[in-house]
Amino acid sequence: MRVDGRPYRSIWLDEDGRTVVVIDQTRLPHSFATRRLHTVEDAADAIRIMVVRGAPLIGATAAYGLALALARDPSDGNLESAIALLAATRPTAVNLRWALEDLGRILRPLAAGDRAAAAYRRAGEICDEDVAINRAIGENGLALIEQAAQGRDSPVNVLTHCNAGWLAAVDWGTALAPLYMAHDKGIPVHVWVDETRPRNQGAALTAWELARHGVPHTVIVDNAGGHLMQRGMVDLCITGTDRTTARGDVCNKIGTYLKALAASDNDVPFYVALPHPTIDWSLADGADTPIEQRDEDEVLTITGRDEAGQETKVALTPAGSRAANYAFDVTPARLVTALITDRGVCDASEEGLQTLFPDRAAGAPSS
Amino acid sequence: MRVDGRPYRSIWLDEDGRTVVVIDQTRLPHSFATRRLHTVEDAADAIRIMVVRGAPLIGATAAYGLALALARDPSDGNLESAIALLAATRPTAVNLRWALEDLGRILRPLAAGDRAAAAYRRAGEICDEDVAINRAIGENGLALIEQAAQGRDSPVNVLTHCNAGWLAAVDWGTALAPLYMAHDKGIPVHVWVDETRPRNQGAALTAWELARHGVPHTVIVDNAGGHLMQRGMVDLCITGTDRTTARGDVCNKIGTYLKALAASDNDVPFYVALPHPTIDWSLADGADTPIEQRDEDEVLTITGRDEAGQETKVALTPAGSRAANYAFDVTPARLVTALITDRGVCDASEEGLQTLFPDRAAGAPSS
Repeated sequence: MRVDGRPYRSIWLDEDGRTVVVIDQTRLPHSFATRRLHTVEDAADAIRIMVVRGAPLIGATAAYGLALALARDPSDGNLESAIALLAATRPTAVNLRWALEDLGRILRPLAAGDRAAAAYRRAGEICDEDVAINRAIGENGLALIEQAAQGRDSPVNVLTHCNAGWLAAVDWGTALAPLYMAHDKGIPVHVWVDETRPRNQGAALTAWELARHGVPHTVIVDNAGGHLMQRGMVDLCITGTDRTTARGDVCNKIGTYLKALAASDNDVPFYVALPHPTIDWSLADGADTPIEQRDEDEVLTITGRDEAGQETKVALTPAGSRAANYAFDVTPARLVTALITDRGVCDASEEGLQTLFPDRAAGAPSS
Repeated sequence: MRVDGRPYRSIWLDEDGRTVVVIDQTRLPHSFATRRLHTVEDAADAIRIMVVRGAPLIGATAAYGLALALARDPSDGNLESAIALLAATRPTAVNLRWALEDLGRILRPLAAGDRAAAAYRRAGEICDEDVAINRAIGENGLALIEQAAQGRDSPVNVLTHCNAGWLAAVDWGTALAPLYMAHDKGIPVHVWVDETRPRNQGAALTAWELARHGVPHTVIVDNAGGHLMQRGMVDLCITGTDRTTARGDVCNKIGTYLKALAASDNDVPFYVALPHPTIDWSLADGADTPIEQRDEDEVLTITGRDEAGQETKVALTPAGSRAANYAFDVTPARLVTALITDRGVCDASEEGLQTLFPDRAAGAPSS
């Protein structure tokens, strides 16, 4: 997508054909800075301290990290230690493990001298595959926005939660891909951006993405969406998801469930956009999804830009009060109008998913 | 209620019998400071800059402000100009207007020399009446908590939104009154405190009140309540309300509706506590309630305590992103399990309210 007119991905290869460049997402929205990764240690650090975040981007960064390692030392020993180093950065990230296994399988049989080039090539392919998946999600979701836009002069009002945009992927994003396509096609859209406490990915990242690409949007507190839907100010909702079960339950950022309840109560369509590899065919009931609990400090404090322009962390609660910090919740399929996947749009149900994935049976292990 | 063992109200008369003392709520939760009001101008400032907030406390402060004015100059002219000064501080505050009308009616017929004493006396009565109303709400709500506590060893988990505690009233509060009573009776309660963006009255005021009185509590982001209810971690919800319609729809802090939806979806009782004067008998359908829009700056920024202990305002969004800031939403009566009033507990419906207020007919003008 564009940043003030110039096209960007969230990760790319420098002109030297070797150095990897990423956007430092820890500095957003207050400053736009890139970071050059020269070594596998640089790549591992970028993942660990969340310079890069979002499952697809983490996978792509790990793949390039392996390429950086092998460009210095393509030995068997270095290949394995680089894989171990990268795998340890975010232990629960599925795409990270998948990318490292994929590259390991390709690289191990090769002669040492061929490994670096093969790793760079495969890392580039992983990025391109992700872009293709998200472009397909965008095209499939675009039809729903076009439908909502028919016969009206005012913009289509779309509510989204958290950040499921190009910063979380390599380009396009998932939930935001249809919105970028609609905007680029000249369909007027306006996005209600939930700030998404505690980490404020909406206020910080989604608002920044949309602003830089020129998409009209308004930031709201997470409390506001229900009222907007009651008053007819939301035409549809689109969110991303971290994991979708074989029955169509979706696990996504904490608070998604509350918006889905409000959408259902006000007959507002609630769509969830997802790349098909995030469907967990081994899991049927979303209530069985393990929910990560994160540090209470994310609730007790917040970081912003002070009047001098410095990033400053401030405490929000009285000294001594404790917090709980559940990172995700599960929205039952009954509240989801449809799933927007790279293979097409389907009902959020076992039957719906099987129309797009006839080869997959619920209860089968994930591949 | 107690602040670290010492009993407090949110407003009181100093030992000199003339100066009015309030807690400076703009400094909470970061520091506990009182402010002495010597003149009607001090009282008007305290209301205007929100040193005091919460409908009952604003009314009480205005009443004492009039007493301060008359202690200096009890003339007709000064009485009327003091009423005008105080009325202009928060133009939409119902209790403010009510208190000024009430005192004006009492004071105008009196000889100038008798006015100051009468004003102090009536201001004190207004405070005591508010305490009595809230104590009655607490007693009526206590029965619901006792019922939830029966036959269990673990604490009753109660979720609340915003601040409807003693800081918003003179003592006890509305939603928190039953919790203070339960706690003081030795019934184990644990309160989930919604932080309540954008002004964070939960994280700042409710958490502070509960901590100082010693009530176990955990702060959560506004996104978290739905997940907690799905996982059986909330036994009941209690919130306050700014206005209740004759049919039992409740207008309260933005986000209340989302919690009521989650409670309904998970069979968690959702109670709303209210002093009966906040029932608007002239309004039937909550959807007709006018909703205040406040400054977008409350969404775009937040104030907290920096590492040096200084209160600092920080910006949360990219420069140029705009925000919308709706202050309240309306929870339809169908989502409210019962109303807890000073007259008793009733169904949130026209029929329910008329069991407690048989003399009031829906559609009648408010008194």
